[in-house]
Amino acid sequence: MTESEYDVAVLGGGPGGYAVALRAAGHGLRVAIVEADKVGGTCLHRGCVPSKALLHVGRLADDVPHAARFGLASPSTAFDVAAAGGFRDEIVDGLHRGLEGLLRARTIEVVNGRGRLTGPGAIEVDGAEGRQVVRARHIVVAIGSTVAELPNLPFDHDGIVSSDDALRLARVPARGVVIGAGAVGVEFASLWRSLGAEVALVEAADRIVPLEDPDSSKALARAFKRRGIAVRSATGVRGATRRDDVIDVELDDGSVVEADQVLVAVGRRPATAGTGLAELGLLDERGFVRADEFGRTALEGVWAVGDVVPTLALAHAAFAEGFVVADEIAGLDPEPVDYRQVPRVTYCTPEVASVGLTEPEARAVHGAVGVVTTTMAGNARALIEAAPGQVKVITAPDGTVVGVHIVGPTATEMIAEATLATSWGALAAEVGAVAHAHPSLAESLRETMLLAAGAPFHAHAPR
Amino acid sequence: MTESEYDVAVLGGGPGGYAVALRAAGHGLRVAIVEADKVGGTCLHRGCVPSKALLHVGRLADDVPHAARFGLASPSTAFDVAAAGGFRDEIVDGLHRGLEGLLRARTIEVVNGRGRLTGPGAIEVDGAEGRQVVRARHIVVAIGSTVAELPNLPFDHDGIVSSDDALRLARVPARGVVIGAGAVGVEFASLWRSLGAEVALVEAADRIVPLEDPDSSKALARAFKRRGIAVRSATGVRGATRRDDVIDVELDDGSVVEADQVLVAVGRRPATAGTGLAELGLLDERGFVRADEFGRTALEGVWAVGDVVPTLALAHAAFAEGFVVADEIAGLDPEPVDYRQVPRVTYCTPEVASVGLTEPEARAVHGAVGVVTTTMAGNARALIEAAPGQVKVITAPDGTVVGVHIVGPTATEMIAEATLATSWGALAAEVGAVAHAHPSLAESLRETMLLAAGAPFHAHAPR
Repeated sequence: MTESEYDVAVLGGGPGGYAVALRAAGHGLRVAIVEADKVGGTCLHRGCVPSKALLHVGRLADDVPHAARFGLASPSTAFDVAAAGGFRDEIVDGLHRGLEGLLRARTIEVVNGRGRLTGPGAIEVDGAEGRQVVRARHIVVAIGSTVAELPNLPFDHDGIVSSDDALRLARVPARGVVIGAGAVGVEFASLWRSLGAEVALVEAADRIVPLEDPDSSKALARAFKRRGIAVRSATGVRGATRRDDVIDVELDDGSVVEADQVLVAVGRRPATAGTGLAELGLLDERGFVRADEFGRTALEGVWAVGDVVPTLALAHAAFAEGFVVADEIAGLDPEPVDYRQVPRVTYCTPEVASVGLTEPEARAVHGAVGVVTTTMAGNARALIEAAPGQVKVITAPDGTVVGVHIVGPTATEMIAEATLATSWGALAAEVGAVAHAHPSLAESLRETMLLAAGAPFHAHAPR
Repeated sequence: MTESEYDVAVLGGGPGGYAVALRAAGHGLRVAIVEADKVGGTCLHRGCVPSKALLHVGRLADDVPHAARFGLASPSTAFDVAAAGGFRDEIVDGLHRGLEGLLRARTIEVVNGRGRLTGPGAIEVDGAEGRQVVRARHIVVAIGSTVAELPNLPFDHDGIVSSDDALRLARVPARGVVIGAGAVGVEFASLWRSLGAEVALVEAADRIVPLEDPDSSKALARAFKRRGIAVRSATGVRGATRRDDVIDVELDDGSVVEADQVLVAVGRRPATAGTGLAELGLLDERGFVRADEFGRTALEGVWAVGDVVPTLALAHAAFAEGFVVADEIAGLDPEPVDYRQVPRVTYCTPEVASVGLTEPEARAVHGAVGVVTTTMAGNARALIEAAPGQVKVITAPDGTVVGVHIVGPTATEMIAEATLATSWGALAAEVGAVAHAHPSLAESLRETMLLAAGAPFHAHAPR
C-alpha cells in the first residue's frame, strides 16, 4: 500500500476544499486533495454553475419577445433542450479544466478515490489503482452535501426529481411542480417558466425564500405571480400519485395539482456516508460535522469547512471558511467568518440578494432600526431593461447600515457594493455621499442610502 | 413685467441644475429653475438616457444569435427603427414626467423660458407669456452644453450628423463612419454595429477612449475589431464630399472611406449663447464659466455647475457639483468634488468604466505603483454570458487602491463597488478580504484585488 505525506490533506475537492488547498499552498504548505469525483464539487458540477448556465438560457428566452418588438427576432417554439445541455456542459467542462490547471500550477496533488478518515493524520483512499493512505499533519473535511429527499415523495429520477436530475434537463415539463421555495426551488421555478412551462411553486413556510427578509419574499412572490407562476406558500405536500404520464401532487389543503415533473428541492444534507466521520464521533445529531468558528473539530489536526458544517451552504461561504482554516493552519491568526457579511444570492428572475440582518433580526438586535425601501421604478436603467426591482436598507439607530435586501435586475451583482459597505460598518450617509454612475442600477442603492440618511435625492419616501 | 423672488434660482434644468434645486429645497430653501426646454437637460433628452435605451435595443439584437442557438428565436432582418424610436421616447417621457412630478413634490418652481443673467440676483426670462424677472439671492448657472462641430465637416443633419441627430435614429446606416472615439463616439459605433451596420471608427488621438487607461483602450479596440468595427486611431479627417447618397470621408493618410452617414462626435461646448454670461465677464477663453472648486464665480452670489464648467462632463459629476453648491449656499461647509472619485462610464459593448488614476497618472503621482490586470476568462458568469472582459487595479506603494479600470460586461455597474473602495482609501487586501457572491462578475474585481495584495485565489498572475 503506497503512502504519501503532506502538510495538509483535504477530503473533498469542492469550493471549501479547493479554497483551503489554494490558500494553504499560497502559504508554502504541501497540499493534497482527495476527491472521488471531479474537483469542483456540487457548485461546479451539480449546483451554482450549471444552474446559472441554464438560467442564462432562460433569460435569453425571456428576451425574445423584447427583441421581437423591434423586429429583431421571430419567436420560436422549437427549444433545443440538447443545445442547452451542450452549453451547460461546455461551461462546466471549461471551468473544470481551468480548476484542474490552477491546482496543478499551484502544485496541489489531486488523489483520486473515495477517502475515509481513519483517525487524526490519515485518510485511506480507495481509487482505481487500489488502496493508499494519504498522511498529513492537518486534515480538512470538505466532503460537501447531497440533495435531501422527502419520505413521502421519494425520487424516481424521472417524474419526481432532485435538483441533480433537473440540472440534467432531459426535458422541460409542460406542467412542473416545485416543492420547496428556497434558492434552488425558486431558481428552477423561474427557469422552467422561462422555458415555457406552467409552474406551481409550493412552500411549507408562510412565504417563499423564507430565509430572506419578508419584504423580499413579498416582492419575489409578486413578480413570480406576474410571470404566471402559481405561488402556494404555507402549503405542505401529502404525497404524489403517478397515473400514466401525469403525477397528481396532493397538497395538505386537500387540493391536487397535476404535473409532468415534480422537483423536490427541500434542502441538502451532509455527504458523510462512508467517510469514517461518524465512527470518529465528529458528527452532530443532524449529521453535520461539529466544528468551532475556526473550523476545528474535536480531533486535534482535523478541520471541517463547507456544506458539511451547519453554516450558510454557499460556495463563497465555503471559500471564506477555507481561507480561515488555511490561515489558522499557517499560524496567521485569522478572524473567524462573519456570516452576516456573506452575501446571499438567488438567481431567479428577478434576482434576490441580501447581506446583513433581515428586518426582524435587526429589530431584535438593535431595537428601533431605520427601514427604508425604494422601488427601482424611477431608475433609468431598470426602466430600460423593463425589470422591476426594489432596494431595502436597514440602519441601526446610529445610522450604520446593518442590512441590505435587493430584489431586481443584477441584484446578485449589486450586493457586492452593499457587502463592502456593511463589512466596513458604513453609515448610510457615507455610501450615499459616493458618486454613482448615471444611469446605473447601482444608483438605486445610493438613492436608498440617501433616503435612509434623511437626504433624499431622486427617491421618494415610500407611500 | 412680473417679478418673483427666491432663495436660489437655477439657470438650466439639466442634471446639475435639478441637483442643486432638489438639494437646496431639501435644506428648506425656496428654489426656482429657469428652463427654456424640458427639465432633464442633455442627459435625459439628448444624451445618456435615450442613448442607453437604444443601446439596450442593440444588445437585444446581439442576443438573438445566442437565443437562436437554443431554438428560442429565428433571426430577423426587419429591424423596426420606428419601434426603437418609440421605445426610446417612452423611456425618456416616463422619466421626464417623473422628474416633473419630483420637482413639484419638492415645491420647486419651474419657470419656462429662455433665461439671461442680467447681473447678480436677477434672471430675465423670455417665455411664452412674455418677459419676467426671476430674482434670487443665489443664482446657479447650469445651462449645459451643445454638440461641437468640426469646421471641415459641418453638420447637414442628414448625411453628416451630430449625436443629437443620430439619437433621433431616423435610420441605421448600412455603412457608418464615426469621427471621434470618446464615450459618445464608441457608443454609437457599438450601437450601429449591433444593428447591422458596417462601421469605421476614426480617432485623431493614438488610441480610442483616449481619456481612459491605455490598457482599457487596447482591450476595447481588440473587442471592437472582433465585432467587425474598423478602428482607425491616430487618424485625422480632412473633409467629406457628398456624391448622391454616398459620402466620401477623406482621412489624413489620403485614404477615402465611403459611408451613408457620418457621425461627428468630437465633444461638446458650453451652451452660453444669449445667457448674458459673456457680457458679465464670467467666461474663460474657451467659453466655459470660470468657477472655483465650490462652484463660485467672480460675481458674488453667482455659481456654476455641470457641463458649463470645465470639469468631467457627466451627469453624475454634475449631481456632485450641484450638491456642493447647494450645501455651500445652505452654509453647510461641504467638501469640494474629488473628481478622481467620480466614476467614468461608457456603455458600448463591451462596457468601459473606471475610477481613480490611469497607470500613467498613478506613476506620475505615486512613483512605483503596483499594477495587476486579470482577464475574466476564468469568471463563471462572464463565460456564461460569453462576454470577454478584464479588470486592472493600480495600487500605491502602501497598497492603497488608486485606480480601477474595467472593460467587460456590466463594467458600468461593477465600478460602483470600486468607487466605494477608492473613495474610502481602501487597501487592495481589504477589498479582497470581503466575501463576494459566487458566481458573479464582481468576483473578478475581488480576484484582482487579492492578486494585487499578493494573495491570489483563482486569478493567475498575468503571463
